[in-house]
Amino acid sequence: MKRHLLSTADLSADDATLILDTAAELARIADRPIKKLPTLRGRTVVNLFYEDSTRTRISFETAAKRLSADVINFSAKGSSVSKGESLKDTALTLEAMGADAVVVRHWASGGAYRLAHAGWIRSAVVNAGDGTHEHPTQALLDAYTLRSRLGSLEGRRIGIVGDVLHSRVARSNVRLLSTLGAEVTLVAPPTLMPFAVEGWPCSSSYDLDPVLPKLDAVMMLRVQRERMDQAFFPTEREYSRRYGLHAQRMAALPEHAVVMHPGPMNRGLEISAEVADSTRSTITEQVANGVSVRMAVLYLLLGGSEPAIGTENEGGAK
Amino acid sequence: MKRHLLSTADLSADDATLILDTAAELARIADRPIKKLPTLRGRTVVNLFYEDSTRTRISFETAAKRLSADVINFSAKGSSVSKGESLKDTALTLEAMGADAVVVRHWASGGAYRLAHAGWIRSAVVNAGDGTHEHPTQALLDAYTLRSRLGSLEGRRIGIVGDVLHSRVARSNVRLLSTLGAEVTLVAPPTLMPFAVEGWPCSSSYDLDPVLPKLDAVMMLRVQRERMDQAFFPTEREYSRRYGLHAQRMAALPEHAVVMHPGPMNRGLEISAEVADSTRSTITEQVANGVSVRMAVLYLLLGGSEPAIGTENEGGAK
Amino acid sequence: MKRHLLSTADLSADDATLILDTAAELARIADRPIKKLPTLRGRTVVNLFYEDSTRTRISFETAAKRLSADVINFSAKGSSVSKGESLKDTALTLEAMGADAVVVRHWASGGAYRLAHAGWIRSAVVNAGDGTHEHPTQALLDAYTLRSRLGSLEGRRIGIVGDVLHSRVARSNVRLLSTLGAEVTLVAPPTLMPFAVEGWPCSSSYDLDPVLPKLDAVMMLRVQRERMDQAFFPTEREYSRRYGLHAQRMAALPEHAVVMHPGPMNRGLEISAEVADSTRSTITEQVANGVSVRMAVLYLLLGGSEPAIGTENEGGAK
Repeated sequence: MKRHLLSTADLSADDATLILDTAAELARIADRPIKKLPTLRGRTVVNLFYEDSTRTRISFETAAKRLSADVINFSAKGSSVSKGESLKDTALTLEAMGADAVVVRHWASGGAYRLAHAGWIRSAVVNAGDGTHEHPTQALLDAYTLRSRLGSLEGRRIGIVGDVLHSRVARSNVRLLSTLGAEVTLVAPPTLMPFAVEGWPCSSSYDLDPVLPKLDAVMMLRVQRERMDQAFFPTEREYSRRYGLHAQRMAALPEHAVVMHPGPMNRGLEISAEVADSTRSTITEQVANGVSVRMAVLYLLLGGSEPAIGTENEGGAK
Repeated sequence: MKRHLLSTADLSADDATLILDTAAELARIADRPIKKLPTLRGRTVVNLFYEDSTRTRISFETAAKRLSADVINFSAKGSSVSKGESLKDTALTLEAMGADAVVVRHWASGGAYRLAHAGWIRSAVVNAGDGTHEHPTQALLDAYTLRSRLGSLEGRRIGIVGDVLHSRVARSNVRLLSTLGAEVTLVAPPTLMPFAVEGWPCSSSYDLDPVLPKLDAVMMLRVQRERMDQAFFPTEREYSRRYGLHAQRMAALPEHAVVMHPGPMNRGLEISAEVADSTRSTITEQVANGVSVRMAVLYLLLGGSEPAIGTENEGGAK
Repeated sequence: MKRHLLSTADLSADDATLILDTAAELARIADRPIKKLPTLRGRTVVNLFYEDSTRTRISFETAAKRLSADVINFSAKGSSVSKGESLKDTALTLEAMGADAVVVRHWASGGAYRLAHAGWIRSAVVNAGDGTHEHPTQALLDAYTLRSRLGSLEGRRIGIVGDVLHSRVARSNVRLLSTLGAEVTLVAPPTLMPFAVEGWPCSSSYDLDPVLPKLDAVMMLRVQRERMDQAFFPTEREYSRRYGLHAQRMAALPEHAVVMHPGPMNRGLEISAEVADSTRSTITEQVANGVSVRMAVLYLLLGGSEPAIGTENEGGAK
């Protein structure tokens, strides 16, 4: 595996499988009363967030703390960034302070790549979402969830529905799921389907209903309400009618198929409350799997000095 | 004891006494050079704050860290909550991430109850203040302080003075102190006395001066200045004259009686600086006791795997 | 050494040397895979910040965590301070909660001194910047950097260039560097040179170019852009032309001389990118040394129960 996790495009099937297998091993400690391993004791993980994202931040924070790493939260709002410091100088500062890993969320597509490859730092960089580009740990936790529900991804048919144009979740998933052998279909209104989709390893459709009966899983993307009612966007009502997943529409899915959402949901818009809370929904599993997957990523990138899972008796070493 | 701590109404005298006794035991470590116990190692406590309250947050954070728990601070401002996520989905997320306890501060009365009883989570929920409803750990630390100053609460007379109408501190204290055998008198301007007070286990008065000579303790409530000068509120000057505790008025208290305040104080408004800093004031003791009481609550709710106080030699286990 | 670190004026040459020597010893752990010592386990360090300063806060947080202390971040924005709580009551609260050290950043000159000497708390107080007054750990990390680059400070000539009038970094450095035997020259536009400089243990100049050839080190101060174009300030262009350090001007420095900056930099204003990134620049070393120096300060003030550096085998004790 590479030194950083920036894009699912960098992951071979073997890389991805190693992460998922490691996550599965680490997930076992979630059932212990003491959900903590000494693996990354003395390592420092910095959460460098240029955009608010409490869910993603606390998922990484929980993951790092379960591995006994120290966590420093660095919200770029109200920091020297607002005094005009460049990404470069922030990077040099974190490097000099001895950060072992930097988990970065950036509003600019390519922000994480720039941080990792400009030669500023030796720390491992984990992309926690950059603009409309990628969000690789989200795709990994989705793949983990699909694998645990469907057994394998090979030949499975996955629909991704919504505002694909602006979705880093969609981009990361298309790449990773196809790497792992799944067949992805993107479903979006014409104005929210990227032109470049022709070159992506997936098929696409403007209509949800004909696609649903063939799917093993459907992943509903979050609608960003602030985009609604703009020229290229349907109204909420129209969107919900054509692309929202409600109980009646869910009935068109095969019986074994699951419903996913990266959260936070707009209940009643892209997904109905009934569907979100149904047994076919994997939404809370996705959150739980997110912690395991991020533990695995941090463990593999930081090359912990101890096995991923030590003996049960780790009390003395923590 | 129940699985959650939502209201002092849920606490029997035995429950409350168990918490206070446990807190007293835990308070002993505050005198050690190493103020830390391994009791909750590997447990995760989430501080979920929908309102700013630095004092309460750092008291819980200190308590949790002294027990070696991991702490995740989740300020609902600037989080996905502001993107419209419901309390339900936030709860499901924290549950899925493996939170063992959620300490919640909510602007809505009943917020903590809803979080605990809607069936969303298995974590223990601790109410750290919900609207004008309850703030049970504040009442517990007040009871702890009274017990340590007065020996016992049985038959003791406690005055609670100020904006009772909007005070969760008053509500929680009335219930807990009466459960523990004390006699509570509420003192407030007519416009700030709840109508329902008739049904509460306490007496009430619009005048402070006749009440003071009979009290064993007087608890001054914080005035929220933003309410002042509204139709139903006296001016600051008028309030201070009639309900403020200054040195001259304090002289009317029996010699053994103590002065309390939940903080933060408006010195010169509901309490004079001289009174706040006098030896009869328990205000900083209340803060210190707050940490012990919150340690006890977290310990009892999470059923730590080790005795509340281990041997002195806990070095190897942390 | 005193109980607090408030001003470099309080440090004798022996005090300062002890801190620098301790920092040098502690810096050695930065090269270990596990950058953590058990020295301050069970101690609580509170970062009390009345002004945003992410860089300084995370440097102290990293330092404290490397010594295994618990860290509580208390941003005074949005806290009870904004509800009108005084510094006194905040201090009494932190004391009562058992803070062992309070690292304070305050917008008012003298804020840290007041916190330490008003008799409110027993905790050690570390001044992390108070108004335009002092920032002693910045001066200590600068001295550390100079010592490691130049061997000794005795007789060394150091230029400090920029908005000296408003700079706590300049004030702290003038005192500390002269205590350690260096000769300091302040360089500033006439409107940004303090009147009182006559009484300071340093010389001063309005022109940078004649000073440069004699220096062993030049320290460029950050320009606060919001002050630019005010009556007493040059424009950015004029400032950069007369006081900015660019490659051509750097050529006037002796070959062994180094370039310093406390960060965050305005690249292109007080320092050019080329200079900032040159091998003569110590800017990232300063950041790294900041963590070591702050570890030393916390260790010495809190009188850790263990040697600053224990045996290599500290695994069992953490």
